[in-house]
This record gives sequence, structure tokens and C-alpha cells, in this order.
Amino acid sequence: MFDEIYDVIVVGGGHAGAEATAAAANMGSKTLLVTMNLQTIGQMSCNPAMGGIAKGQIVREIDALGGYSGIITDKSAIQFKMLNKSKGPAMWSPRAQSDRMRFAEEWRLALERTPNVDFYQEMVNGLLIEDNKVVGVKTSLGIEIKAKSVVLTNGTFLNGLIHIGEKQFGGGRAGEKAATGITEQLVQLGFESGRMKTGTPPRVDGRSLDYSKMIVQPGDENPEKFSYLNTPILTKQRDCHMTHTSALVHDLLREGFDRSPMFNGRIKSIGPRYCPSIEDKINRFADKDSHQMFIEPEGWDTVEVYVNGFSTSLPEDVQFKALRSVKGFEKVKFFRPGYAIEYDYFPPTQLKHTLETKIVDNLYFAGQINGTTGYEEAASQGLMAGINAHLKINEKDPFILKRDEAYIGVLIDDLITKGTEEPYRMFTSRAEYRTLLRQDNADLRLTPKGYKLGLAKENRMKRMEEKMQKSEAFIEFFKQTSVLPEDMNPILDTIKSSPIRQSDKMFKLFSRPKVTMNHMMTLNPVLEYVEENQLDQEVLEQAEVQVKYSGYIEKEKLNADKLNRLEAVRIPDGFDYKILKSLSFEAREKLSAIQPVTISQASRISGVTPSDISVLLVHLGR
Amino acid sequence: MFDEIYDVIVVGGGHAGAEATAAAANMGSKTLLVTMNLQTIGQMSCNPAMGGIAKGQIVREIDALGGYSGIITDKSAIQFKMLNKSKGPAMWSPRAQSDRMRFAEEWRLALERTPNVDFYQEMVNGLLIEDNKVVGVKTSLGIEIKAKSVVLTNGTFLNGLIHIGEKQFGGGRAGEKAATGITEQLVQLGFESGRMKTGTPPRVDGRSLDYSKMIVQPGDENPEKFSYLNTPILTKQRDCHMTHTSALVHDLLREGFDRSPMFNGRIKSIGPRYCPSIEDKINRFADKDSHQMFIEPEGWDTVEVYVNGFSTSLPEDVQFKALRSVKGFEKVKFFRPGYAIEYDYFPPTQLKHTLETKIVDNLYFAGQINGTTGYEEAASQGLMAGINAHLKINEKDPFILKRDEAYIGVLIDDLITKGTEEPYRMFTSRAEYRTLLRQDNADLRLTPKGYKLGLAKENRMKRMEEKMQKSEAFIEFFKQTSVLPEDMNPILDTIKSSPIRQSDKMFKLFSRPKVTMNHMMTLNPVLEYVEENQLDQEVLEQAEVQVKYSGYIEKEKLNADKLNRLEAVRIPDGFDYKILKSLSFEAREKLSAIQPVTISQASRISGVTPSDISVLLVHLGR
Repeated sequence: MFDEIYDVIVVGGGHAGAEATAAAANMGSKTLLVTMNLQTIGQMSCNPAMGGIAKGQIVREIDALGGYSGIITDKSAIQFKMLNKSKGPAMWSPRAQSDRMRFAEEWRLALERTPNVDFYQEMVNGLLIEDNKVVGVKTSLGIEIKAKSVVLTNGTFLNGLIHIGEKQFGGGRAGEKAATGITEQLVQLGFESGRMKTGTPPRVDGRSLDYSKMIVQPGDENPEKFSYLNTPILTKQRDCHMTHTSALVHDLLREGFDRSPMFNGRIKSIGPRYCPSIEDKINRFADKDSHQMFIEPEGWDTVEVYVNGFSTSLPEDVQFKALRSVKGFEKVKFFRPGYAIEYDYFPPTQLKHTLETKIVDNLYFAGQINGTTGYEEAASQGLMAGINAHLKINEKDPFILKRDEAYIGVLIDDLITKGTEEPYRMFTSRAEYRTLLRQDNADLRLTPKGYKLGLAKENRMKRMEEKMQKSEAFIEFFKQTSVLPEDMNPILDTIKSSPIRQSDKMFKLFSRPKVTMNHMMTLNPVLEYVEENQLDQEVLEQAEVQVKYSGYIEKEKLNADKLNRLEAVRIPDGFDYKILKSLSFEAREKLSAIQPVTISQASRISGVTPSDISVLLVHLGR
Repeated sequence: MFDEIYDVIVVGGGHAGAEATAAAANMGSKTLLVTMNLQTIGQMSCNPAMGGIAKGQIVREIDALGGYSGIITDKSAIQFKMLNKSKGPAMWSPRAQSDRMRFAEEWRLALERTPNVDFYQEMVNGLLIEDNKVVGVKTSLGIEIKAKSVVLTNGTFLNGLIHIGEKQFGGGRAGEKAATGITEQLVQLGFESGRMKTGTPPRVDGRSLDYSKMIVQPGDENPEKFSYLNTPILTKQRDCHMTHTSALVHDLLREGFDRSPMFNGRIKSIGPRYCPSIEDKINRFADKDSHQMFIEPEGWDTVEVYVNGFSTSLPEDVQFKALRSVKGFEKVKFFRPGYAIEYDYFPPTQLKHTLETKIVDNLYFAGQINGTTGYEEAASQGLMAGINAHLKINEKDPFILKRDEAYIGVLIDDLITKGTEEPYRMFTSRAEYRTLLRQDNADLRLTPKGYKLGLAKENRMKRMEEKMQKSEAFIEFFKQTSVLPEDMNPILDTIKSSPIRQSDKMFKLFSRPKVTMNHMMTLNPVLEYVEENQLDQEVLEQAEVQVKYSGYIEKEKLNADKLNRLEAVRIPDGFDYKILKSLSFEAREKLSAIQPVTISQASRISGVTPSDISVLLVHLGR
């Protein structure tokens, strides 16, 4: 039935699978997306939102490289917020609520419009492997589909087991079948597998809520967007709302703890620490008698509502009784209860930086199968797996992002170097160089790379170049142009900054704390420059960040360069650590298991000490 | 979790369930729709089209009564055709291709906007029954939800078993779980259950087809629509295409016959005779070496395509090989193979005219669970079940449509009187009075009834009344107005109809064969009347049909009246046929089993002869 040999087969059509498909196909690989249900491509399994702290940066990075997540989010957004705007620009994080149906439809149509993508609906339950190399997949009908490489993005479907109170049943998502066969085969091949757990809150009927008792959470007054391309900006938005749990709610939930699969031992695997269930929060923070809840609409028109902050696998009657005691939820009606789901994952230390597995050549893993949580984490892995699958079969160099180049680099390096024992999500704190990895400059950092790969297209590169040239020229203008005391001092006076006695360079004054672009724009020459050069908001923002944070940025760049020198010290393939007796026992064990590619990577393995690194450096002749 | 007692619970969110929900709720019943997946409400499981011969009339009838199917179809249509336009108006049948995703989304949102509708996602696997009366449902989580009445619309999900070649697996639809528990419980309660089979063709990638080798099937130049309300008319349309199987294709398919579940005995149940699989067609019509295939797009933007006429459960490799030999399909790529599905149904002779079951009070069945096939048949049953569930719990008279009032009446009367051993679909030939049951007058026939029920709203009633008044006045105008020979004869000359010598009434001349409204409109007084009274297309068409077919219409009305007199002869509840020794044995058996309500219904039971009817009439004192 499939007579051609695909370049890449992607298994699964969630965020990871969809990005992997788009990336490989856009680079020119003949790609097949196989999914259990073609109607659920791009389905948001949990909350109807993209982005957030660090995650928003990832979406911007995906977009900068030529991925689709940012575009799809912009097209389906119903609310936009730039989080952390009061903090430094390294912390600014875009986040959007999406229309769930629209999001999935846009993904499906975007993939259909991508050349080189074929689709097939069926469960993949095995891989075709020859000489430790994957050569295709096998479906539940027994169909063999040949391919040069395979990307697995199974999400929560591998032996998925859903828990609600004392009940449990197989399923990949509520109302959907689990997938079987793949884990068993991979374990036979020598892979280590584990179980993880995640959960989701009840979905409720928005018409049954009393929003007047909640706090309105509107979108930004001047909403921005995710994609660096010319996607639409929201002209209207839907509100979210905030409410809180209470001591009473917690008491009601506690009444069900003895029937909770989390507490009675039925769920053995670990859930996402930073996206805990409500019972987990009550248990861990016993002194708190209130937690925030965010009430998020599921779309423009639907009455379905997502109860963010109330993820739970308690018995449905307990969920219901407790939720009815939340302010505004007195008359709530359920569309469906929350639940927990356990699923198989493969500790990601079994992967290379390209997300290819170490055991089976040309086999890539992306998303929850690697122990991560989050749409954005999944999407970015899918993108990188799709890129690298394409590159490898075309005998090109792998595409690896360094830790100072992208959150995506941090994510993958963390995963394959440190592994993860609990669902891994991204935080700004995981990045050593977060001032470099901002949401405003993802295009400057990554679009040239995406363009070189053939993934980012001409128009994207041009937009980036124009933005870069214009902002650099603008910064140069500030460096070259002086301002007179009589012009500058009124500004400095308003922010209680000491006046100047003689004219000085604008750059220097702009660098002072509290002086903003808005201040500078009150100066005639600046205003004239902006108008003459038709600088848009994006360029103004870019120039402002680069002027005001130039000190931090320079410092981080220096640090990154230092580390990159260690990054250049490569460890030979299959290096035998046993011969280095002066390494600690733990270091020898971990290094042998993970097989780091560079000294720098070795240094990040937990348990490998600076003295172990010295031993290695000496041995390698440094 | 559910503390209130619902008036109506509807199980299943397909065409039947969605209409049942809308009807009961719009009449004022507090209604709960329970479905295994809230994302698949209004899913078109098979072809992306509504209407067709006799079926299009049903959709018009649903609309006239105040149901939603017509509105949803208009909103999601991508192509419209009035079939049989060359035949008499009794045969005119509207048909539309729909955008599959849009159709489902419009249904979901329409139901959300309907007052009194609650939603809940879970599998119902049991009914709550007290004293032979249903009092609610039980879900797979063990939740009991109370209700005064329950409508079951389980489609193909009850113990659904999917077949592709020699493989078979449980499922309600491809990629979706089967439903369990309900059949077993109903059988224990004394219901007879059976198995039916249906099938669906492969879905393929439209980009892999060569349309230049096929025949274009465009929509109508002046597309009409389904709803009598003010829904949009298509301003652009998508083409369908036609191609054919060949002797070679048939040979290739025959190669798989020994592995066909249809022929090797694995599928025991009967499929829809008039929607046969391609293997069935080849088998039954062995002398034909070509069958038509219609290639239907699945939406405005998607590349997915439905291969109408190629339903099959042959092994997927056989499907593929054969389809590749069809003209235009030389390079076809599959999205998914065709399959057959077996599912439980309950012979509908176990129902009353209201679709309430005879064994369990307040329990209603609608759709494939009654052994029917087709979206339109399902939707109309759902509508009638929803209406009657509401009426009964409010102690109002049941709502029954007679055979001369609606195809819906024919459908339900056929089902409950004759039963069905194979999936039942509607044909114009099933109706005794098809000249009365036209698509153009469904509103005149049914909107007053729908309005009286409180289902059709004021605006719908007003539109109908205006149309009726205007067309009646227009007909009266033709009856009153004379035309001179010098004005009429040029028209008669063009169609070779004998000229008139003296002026005559327009009505009489309009009644002549081949004289059309367009002809009449060339007469100045007619044109003036039309313009003065602002008659729209609908009124012109209505007047034309009523003038030109007045003879047939009158005759059918007389016949119907005759039959309706028999309809008035009611048979007492629980009548004991055993005491009537002069009845044939077969008649006694069938009449006892079916318990007809009137002599008329008794006369339609197969095996009951005219002499049996005489015996009954004599006994009842007629």
C-alpha cells in the first residue's frame, strides 16, 4: 500500500509531531505523518494556551527558525499577554489563549498546505529495524511503511492509563484509545523505559459560572503576537478570570484523599512538579488555605471553559463538591471531570543532541516520550528532530543549538545530559544566559540559522535583516548624536536623575536607569530619525533593549564565550572512562552512560565534579 | 455530581442525538447530551453530504418543524444541487456537500447556544430503570444521572466491530472506542437485539488524484438551500468529480474476495442494500464491468477526499491496488482505508409511533439503533424522539406524522410496522403520496405543526404564512385573469401547443404541458403582478408546482383521505388477536407482536391480508 520509501515518518500529530512533520517536509524530505486519528492533529490536550514564562520564548524561537507554532497561535489566539513586562526584558514572556478548535484546524490545514507531507491514519505499533537502524514502521493492520528515518512523538498514548479516583482505564486521552506495542519493542532492543504521570482539570460549562464573583483578567491593551512574520494582531480579545480555592474547598478535597490514586499508591509515577494537581498543592503546602485558579475560555464562541489550577484525579464526586464551593462556581456544571494519566517515556539520556537515539540509528524521539511536559517543549523538540532527521539522511552536519543560543538548546542539552526523573518543563532559571535568550531577539539569534538550513524562507530572513539593520543603525545614531543640557535636563528632572552640565552622547544618557525610549522620543532629533526611517515598534523595542541592557548582554556574551571554549574540547566517540582511574567512581559511571560529546557537556552532568573535569582535560592534552 | 433530575437525557451526539437534544431543549425540556467525546458532536461518519433523493425532502421537513439539520447544512455547504430537476417536482431533491469540520463545529456551537442544554462527556453503559420506566443513565465511571426520559442514539457504537480484510477490532468508528453495556442490559429486560453492518470507503489525498481524467461535477448554477429561514446562499462552490471502475479494477478486487469478511462468513449481518460495498456490487451485478464513483472534497480547504461508491472492507492492500487502477487514481495516496463495521440494533417493531419503546416507558430510540441508515433518517428520528419525550413528560398528546403528511411519517410508520431486516433508508417510492410530500412545500405541510408544538418559532411561521398567502393569491390571480389569443398564442406556438381562438383563463393555459412559469412571466399582466407583489423565487416555484400539478395533487389528497378514514379506526390497547379464529395464523402472530394502533397500520404489516383486515373491521363493528 506504501510503495515509496519515505525520508521521514513522524508518528503522532500533536505539537511535537506536527512541528517535526513541517520541518522535515519544508527542508525537502518526503514526510509521512501517521496518527491514530487525523481529526485530532494539533489537539491541545490540556489548557488552551501557548507560551508563558520561558515557554513563550521557545515559541518565538520555533518561529524564528521557520516552525509553525507561532503562526498557528497567532491565527487562533483569543487573548494575548506579555508576562513579566515590569521586569527586565530577559523575563518578558509572551502568552496567548487559543481557540481550541481553531488551533487544531489551523494546524491540520497548515500541514496539508506544506509540500512533501503525506498523511495516514492508523495506530503504529512497531518499528522496522535492520542492523540497529530504523527502516520504517508497522501499523496495527500489519502494514509496513518504509522510511529512512522515524520520529516518535507519542505523547501520553504509549500504554496510557487514565485515573479518576479509584477507577482506571486504558486511554491516550479522555475518550481516546491508548497506543500499544512500541514500548515493548524498544525495551527488547535495550531501551530503558519509565512511567510518568500528568493530569488535567475538569472542563466546565461557562454559562454555569458567576463571573461577577471573580477578578477579570483581560488581555494586553496593545496585544503583540508570536510570529515574526506578518500574522494578524488581535483587534478584539476574550477575558479570562481569576478566583481562588479556600480552606473549605481544601477540606472537601481532603475528604477524598483516601480514594485518591495519588495518595493510595495506585499512581506510582511522578507528575509535573510545577503543574501540580490541586490535591498535590494542598498536601505539599498544608499551611496555605488558598490557591489561585484561572478560568480560561476554550474559544471565541464555545461555552466550554478550562479550570486552570484545578488539575485533579480525585473521584469525580469529590471534584464536583469541592469545585462547587469555589467562589463563582456555586452552580458549576461539568463537561467532564479532571483526570490523571500515566504513560511510558524513555529517559532522554538515551539520546544524542540531535534527539536521535543512541541505540537505534535514524530513530528520533520528541515530546513527552522524552519525559518533558508542555506544548512548547514538545513542539521545539519536534522541530529539532525533524530538522536533524532530514539532515542526517542527506549526510549533512547535525543542527545543534548551544545553551547560549536558544532555550531550545538548553532544553535538549539538559534532557540528554542530565536526564529527568519527573516531567521536565522549561524555566528562565534553567538558562545560564537568559539575558541573551530573549523573546525579542529570537529572530536575530536564530533566523539566519533557519535560513541556512533552508527552513526559514527568504521573506522571513529579509524581515529579520531589516529589523537588525534598522535597530543597529538606530543604536549607532544614539552613539553618534549628542544632546544639549537644555534639551535633556527636563527629561532627567522628571525621573529625578542628575542633570548634565554639557552636551553628551545620547547613548550614554539613554543607558541611565529609568530613561526610556518614550523619553528619548520627546527629543526632536530622535523623533525625526524615527519618522524619517519609518521605524516600527519592533525596531524601537529592539534598540531600547540593546541600549539599556548592553552591560548585561556584554557580560553574558563573555561568559558564554568562555564556556564555548570548553565546548570546543571534544571527547572522542566511545571514549573509555574506565581507564581514567583518577575519576571518581560516580563520574566514571555517569560519563560512560551518557557519553558526553564535549568537556562542556561532561561538566554539566550531575555528579561530575570540577576535579573530574580537570582529569579529563589533562588526559585530552589540555 | 448531577443533583438535578433532567427532563431528557440524550445519549450520543450524532445526527439523531443532536436533533433530539435541540428539539427537547427548544420545547423547554431541561436536556443533557451525554457523549463519549464532546469534540465529535455532529461528526459526519461517512460521506460529507446531506440530502439526496427523498433524504433531501427529510432535511426540509426537519427544518420546517424547527430542527437544525437544514441550517447547519446551509452554513457548512460547499456545493448544492437540486437532483431530479428534469422530473416532476415530487422528485426534486436537494443535496449539499458539506465542509466536514465546519459541519461538526456548527452543530456543537448551535447546541451550545440552545437554552436548556447541558453537556457531559463520558460513555453511558447502563440505564436506570424502575418499574419498567427509565429514570436515568449510568456512566462508565459509575455516575448515575437522573432523568424523566432517555433517548438512545448510539449509532454504530454499541459493541461496534470494525473489519478490514481478515483483521477485526472493536471500535465505534475508525480511531474511536466502541460502547458497551447497553445492549446486554436491554436484552435482559426483554428486548430483541440484532446486528447490522455498514461500511465506508477509503479517504484519500486529493493532491494525488488526476482530475483531468475525470468528469467535473459542478454545483447548480443557481444554488438553492435547505432551510426555509434566512440562511446564506452559496456564492462560490467546490466541484465534485466522477470516474468509473473498470473490468481490471473488478478483477483486482476479486483477487481479495477470499480474504473478504463479507464473503468468508466473518461478517454475518446485513449491510445497506442501496449503499453497497464495491465488492457487493461486483458480486451482485457480475455482468457490469463498470460502476460510477463520485469524488467528493471534504471541505473548503482540506485536501482530504471522500471516494463515494467505493465502500469496502477488503484487505487494505487489495483496496489500494484496485483503486490505483481507477482512472485518475493512478497515483492515489490513502489517508485511511475503507472498512466495514458491525453494530447492535434493536428491531424497531419494538417501538411505538412516538419512538418510545414498548417495553420500557419513557425510553426512546433514534437512528441506527433502530436499524436505519443515513444521516437524514437518523436526524429526523432524533427530532421526533426529542419532541415526543418532551410531550410525554408534560402529559401532552404525542406528535405523530401521518404517511400523507411527511416522509418522516412514512419512515417511522414503516419502521415500527414492518420492521427492517437490513439497514433501512428512505426512497420516494416508499411514500404512497409523494406528490404531496415535496421538498418545496415541507414548510406549508409542517411549519404550522412545528409552531403549535412550540418548536418552530414565530419568524419561521411568519415566513411560511407569507409564502402561502402570496402563492395562493398568485394562483387565484391565474384563475381570475384571462389572456387574449394574440398574447398567448406566440407562447403556445414556441412549444407546439394548439393555439386558442378566444380569450381564456390563464390557469387553464398554464396547466397545459410544457407551459412554464417562465412562459407566463412573458405576459405583461403576470410580470406586473409579480413585480407589484414582490414575489420571490420561492413563491413563483410554489405557485407553478401547485398550478401545474394540481390534478395529481388533488387525486393524492383524495386517496389519502380515504386511507385516513381507516386510520381513524383505532384498535384497543392490548387487543387479544387470539380470540379472532378467522384471522390467518400469520396475521395473528404478527398483529400480536406489533400491536398496531389503527386498522390502517394493521393493513401495512407484511403478512396481514385484506381479508384479515375485513375480519378485524367486522369485529370492531365497522
